[in-house]
Amino acid sequence: MKIVLKSPLDMHLHLRDADMLKNVAKYSSSCFAGAIIMPNLVPPITTIDDVKAYKNRIKEATKGDIFEPYMTLFFKDSYDYDFLKEAKNFVKAIKLYPTGITTNSEGGVSNFDIDNLRGTLEAMSELEIPLSVHGETDGFILEREQEFGKFYEKLAKAFPKLKIIMEHISDRHSVELLKEYENLYATITLHHLLITLDDVIGGSLKPHLFCKPIAKRYEDREALQEIALSGYKKIMFGSDSAPHLKEKKESFEGAAGIFSTPILIPALCELFDKNGKLENLQRFISDNAKEIYDIEPLEKEIIVEKNEFLVPKICDGVVPMLAGEKLLWRCQGESQ
Amino acid sequence: MKIVLKSPLDMHLHLRDADMLKNVAKYSSSCFAGAIIMPNLVPPITTIDDVKAYKNRIKEATKGDIFEPYMTLFFKDSYDYDFLKEAKNFVKAIKLYPTGITTNSEGGVSNFDIDNLRGTLEAMSELEIPLSVHGETDGFILEREQEFGKFYEKLAKAFPKLKIIMEHISDRHSVELLKEYENLYATITLHHLLITLDDVIGGSLKPHLFCKPIAKRYEDREALQEIALSGYKKIMFGSDSAPHLKEKKESFEGAAGIFSTPILIPALCELFDKNGKLENLQRFISDNAKEIYDIEPLEKEIIVEKNEFLVPKICDGVVPMLAGEKLLWRCQGESQ
Repeated sequence: MKIVLKSPLDMHLHLRDADMLKNVAKYSSSCFAGAIIMPNLVPPITTIDDVKAYKNRIKEATKGDIFEPYMTLFFKDSYDYDFLKEAKNFVKAIKLYPTGITTNSEGGVSNFDIDNLRGTLEAMSELEIPLSVHGETDGFILEREQEFGKFYEKLAKAFPKLKIIMEHISDRHSVELLKEYENLYATITLHHLLITLDDVIGGSLKPHLFCKPIAKRYEDREALQEIALSGYKKIMFGSDSAPHLKEKKESFEGAAGIFSTPILIPALCELFDKNGKLENLQRFISDNAKEIYDIEPLEKEIIVEKNEFLVPKICDGVVPMLAGEKLLWRCQGESQ
Repeated sequence: MKIVLKSPLDMHLHLRDADMLKNVAKYSSSCFAGAIIMPNLVPPITTIDDVKAYKNRIKEATKGDIFEPYMTLFFKDSYDYDFLKEAKNFVKAIKLYPTGITTNSEGGVSNFDIDNLRGTLEAMSELEIPLSVHGETDGFILEREQEFGKFYEKLAKAFPKLKIIMEHISDRHSVELLKEYENLYATITLHHLLITLDDVIGGSLKPHLFCKPIAKRYEDREALQEIALSGYKKIMFGSDSAPHLKEKKESFEGAAGIFSTPILIPALCELFDKNGKLENLQRFISDNAKEIYDIEPLEKEIIVEKNEFLVPKICDGVVPMLAGEKLLWRCQGESQ
């Protein structure tokens, strides 16, 4: 059995920089037609020159593949209309991080008063630049996303024409918000569809499944699966694949982030197939994103076949999700 | 400022075996007068010969120190009255593990029907051998202890004269049970008094704070602190200190267990002092255990002074809790 995916898109991706970029970019560019590239480098991407230079480095690292990096800026409440107007030519979204909440998010937003953000967000709304948000408070680990929901509601009400992307939703309460507010959209990762907190800390400790937002309860995973598998039009696939070298994960202080890129398409096919929803995968992995972001991706066809795929134990120094395990689908051309 | 602790006891300790035993035993025997030694070796301690031989190995590893290892057996529902009568001469408790729930707990109990356990537990009750329990179900990681509560209640009702020790309680619901049933007792660890799940996975991943039962919510820690600091007579200190080599913790699959022995007494003094409850520490760390277990520990005085203590980064290949951090108290004779 085979299926063809047209122009798959990863709407939330960390490609890092320098050697890591050179090592990991190919895992995305070989099987996706494009990806939203997160701006949380050190220092973060905050100028148009940063964007151009980073995009060039990504182009260089993905040379030979049909792959479009959709660039983003790291949100600052100091961005004004003129800057944003110019930026719109180079970026597809602006990513807001609460300060200190995840990898390289220092320098993010610490004052969540709407009035503090109004100037920048009104300009983005007028210019039709989507706001991408890492939605977590600094509360108890399992409740951070739910607590942030209040802020999503405030934003959605205060800026009704702003497209607000709730990134990597992991909590069933976010699914409810998504249905309630027209201008809220969301990405969902592969890992939040597959694992719960029990997979991370319920048996032995699994540092390669440790990420922010942390995987949650069974009922959260169920709510995410239900809406993603249905092909619901306000949901896009975004991997949040976030590579760290093996030694940064298996460490005294393990870094947050799951490197899922090498298994994304096979594992999504397996999940959708197992649930009898393969016909909705095209919407989840590309069509919904085209409409939400109003983009016309590069033409690319990925053929996936129902054939065993043994996940590598390590990819260029990074341990992928499900390392050493078997999947039931694989991309054509992928070695067994 | 100095205080003197009389015959401190660690009522829940993993000393392991072979090289690890030789390496870690001194951290306990230097500052405790005795400890309840857990039986979950590979294979577990299930015969009187096992007990005698293991006790001899511990005696050898702690030679020169005033230290009494109080031995235990690994619970089996096949133990009969005659065996238990003989065992009582050599052990202070029998430890029940649900199968597969923590390190080396394979071969534990899988059938929790009271009738299945009745023969052994009635004999233990008659012989006045305390039952020590690792109380977790195989449910969602944060609810395992709370779910096990139903079984504690069944046990407490079915065997009203059996002393049942709820080991390393970590959930506020266990504190409530303790108050409700006369024949329920508990140990509390240092780490469950100090940390929450946020310390383990809320920032970067901290494998050396990963243990079973997992550290829980702020309200759980608060309930545990309140009852431990009060000196409540049915609560004993039990460290559950469980050493694993650094490389088994900072690993693809991290082992569960916190090695807290090197910091126990200083950190407990700091906690009780900070809360103005130093006068209750003697009860928590020795006197309550003497009454509950009806033991007369070896005479030993440990002098602890309010003086900075820098926790070592590694102790014989094992990373201790709070490695590299500073404590405000230290045992006399401990290097700075």
